[in-house]
Amino acid sequence: MICVLSGGTGGAKFVDGLRQVMPAEEITLVVNTGDDLLWWGLYVSPDIDSITYVLSGMLSRERGWGVKGDTFLCLQAMGQLGEPTWFHTGDRDLAMHLLRSRLLAEGKTLSEATAVISQKLGVKARILPMSDSRVETRVDTPIGELSFEEYFVQRWYQDPVNAVRFAGASDAEPAPGVVDAITSADAVIIAPSNPITSIGPILAVPGIHNALLQAKARIAKPKIAAISPIVGNAPVAGPAGILMQAQGLPCSIAGVAHAYEDFLDLLVCDTRDARAADMLRQSGLRVHCTRTVMRTADDKAALAREVLSLISPDLLKDKTPAVPQVDSQP
Amino acid sequence: MICVLSGGTGGAKFVDGLRQVMPAEEITLVVNTGDDLLWWGLYVSPDIDSITYVLSGMLSRERGWGVKGDTFLCLQAMGQLGEPTWFHTGDRDLAMHLLRSRLLAEGKTLSEATAVISQKLGVKARILPMSDSRVETRVDTPIGELSFEEYFVQRWYQDPVNAVRFAGASDAEPAPGVVDAITSADAVIIAPSNPITSIGPILAVPGIHNALLQAKARIAKPKIAAISPIVGNAPVAGPAGILMQAQGLPCSIAGVAHAYEDFLDLLVCDTRDARAADMLRQSGLRVHCTRTVMRTADDKAALAREVLSLISPDLLKDKTPAVPQVDSQP
Repeated sequence: MICVLSGGTGGAKFVDGLRQVMPAEEITLVVNTGDDLLWWGLYVSPDIDSITYVLSGMLSRERGWGVKGDTFLCLQAMGQLGEPTWFHTGDRDLAMHLLRSRLLAEGKTLSEATAVISQKLGVKARILPMSDSRVETRVDTPIGELSFEEYFVQRWYQDPVNAVRFAGASDAEPAPGVVDAITSADAVIIAPSNPITSIGPILAVPGIHNALLQAKARIAKPKIAAISPIVGNAPVAGPAGILMQAQGLPCSIAGVAHAYEDFLDLLVCDTRDARAADMLRQSGLRVHCTRTVMRTADDKAALAREVLSLISPDLLKDKTPAVPQVDSQP
Repeated sequence: MICVLSGGTGGAKFVDGLRQVMPAEEITLVVNTGDDLLWWGLYVSPDIDSITYVLSGMLSRERGWGVKGDTFLCLQAMGQLGEPTWFHTGDRDLAMHLLRSRLLAEGKTLSEATAVISQKLGVKARILPMSDSRVETRVDTPIGELSFEEYFVQRWYQDPVNAVRFAGASDAEPAPGVVDAITSADAVIIAPSNPITSIGPILAVPGIHNALLQAKARIAKPKIAAISPIVGNAPVAGPAGILMQAQGLPCSIAGVAHAYEDFLDLLVCDTRDARAADMLRQSGLRVHCTRTVMRTADDKAALAREVLSLISPDLLKDKTPAVPQVDSQP
């Protein structure tokens, strides 16, 4: 069993690879919920949605979010009713939010609702929200404090960022199963997600950081690996660089290593960062360079295979090197 | 000002005519809410929806319900999630239910939510729910008691009906403005809706029946007119016949007249009922025969014009006879 800590974008790409190279039943995902929002009165959990969609084969790989082939007629109609339309919920996608919202209104926890939906969509991996309590990523900018989705989607992450905080985190508990999934895993992978606003909220939930320390201590072999979402001095996508700098971290693999330094055994970074990798190795961290930018399904599978072969090769479906496949999905 | 008591199907057709021949600002609608249901956790008010859609020009005239040109991808996706799909909510249509549900969750009454939505859609007529309290039409059948939409939509009104009741009606109050709209109107029209389950719930709200008696008493000229939804011994559409018989009324214009006998001044029925009309006239009721089956926009306008000319000719936009128009809408 491996445990993956993940956000929704880079994380979903990596998970798309992972599900190709190992049995999905052997994966537990601990997913960021700091971006969750009430949208049109519905509870939307963008990262859980992306992970659920990728694992059910429903994700639009073209957009990287939402359901493939979706339409946006309800969104248009909401616009005609004068409602906000900056968060793009597709017509098929709405079903996810409607069902989750109903389950929550009926008294189910977010974990329980997530499990119900996973089961209905035939998802074999286990998806756990980081917490069943509300933890909100708040981004402090010159125009005021924004929710993550306001900062990221509504305002296209154009605002300078003073700081990031996770409202509610100190009172939150890890969702049932999260600590056990981390401490009992054969290996823990930190997906190539934004260290501040995708992995940061997970680590801010009391008990999770400790679980990682326990996991690291349990056996000697490299057990906790992170894939860097930064190549050179820029993120592969999104606002990770701005946010890391706002939190006092350099936008580099050194910054990523620093974010996870308490528990990290192995950092996987891009071959273009070979020199920076050498510097990090001098500080005692194990660093592996490979191609980390995932454009095709093959890229995703190759990266997942490489990471797994370093930390938990027994879980690989096929021990021979990957044969390039045709990616038939848009 | 005229006041129209209406359900959603025959009523919407008649209102579609009315808005063509008189200023919409002069119409107040008192609409049945006995069919309202929680669907996927959203509050759906089928008759208010149909009336709102017809008055905003959004109604699918082809189907007689929902939004023209709508798609059903969310419905499909809900089916894939194992959720019920028998109540057909389109993707555009969902916007109405999402907004109303949010407004209600924020503490607005159904009247207030209806007014907000009407205003946003540019509806000039005033749409009032019969009550802001929950009144549920319950249909007693051999398989148990069903909600109206379960009986009508889910089970295609195939079940024998023992009786109909309006749960919650005795504790309900007319929505703000309803009694005043009835008592102060120049004329009241009872739309060609199902007397039992469309008009019945409205009349079951304490205070509304009395308001009609007051309206009738106020002036001598024919003031309260009903259009029969029954032609010969069958309803134009739907289960009105079965339901009338279950409530001890014949399925005929005599049954319609009986349902409204306490306050009715004028019954408008189809020319095919000329003989039955003669019999009713002998009992003292004023009865007018005309073409009541509405297939085209012209049919609707012609019927509305004829009814108005009998009870409130001053409100007609154009006092000359209607010129046939081309109905360009599907």
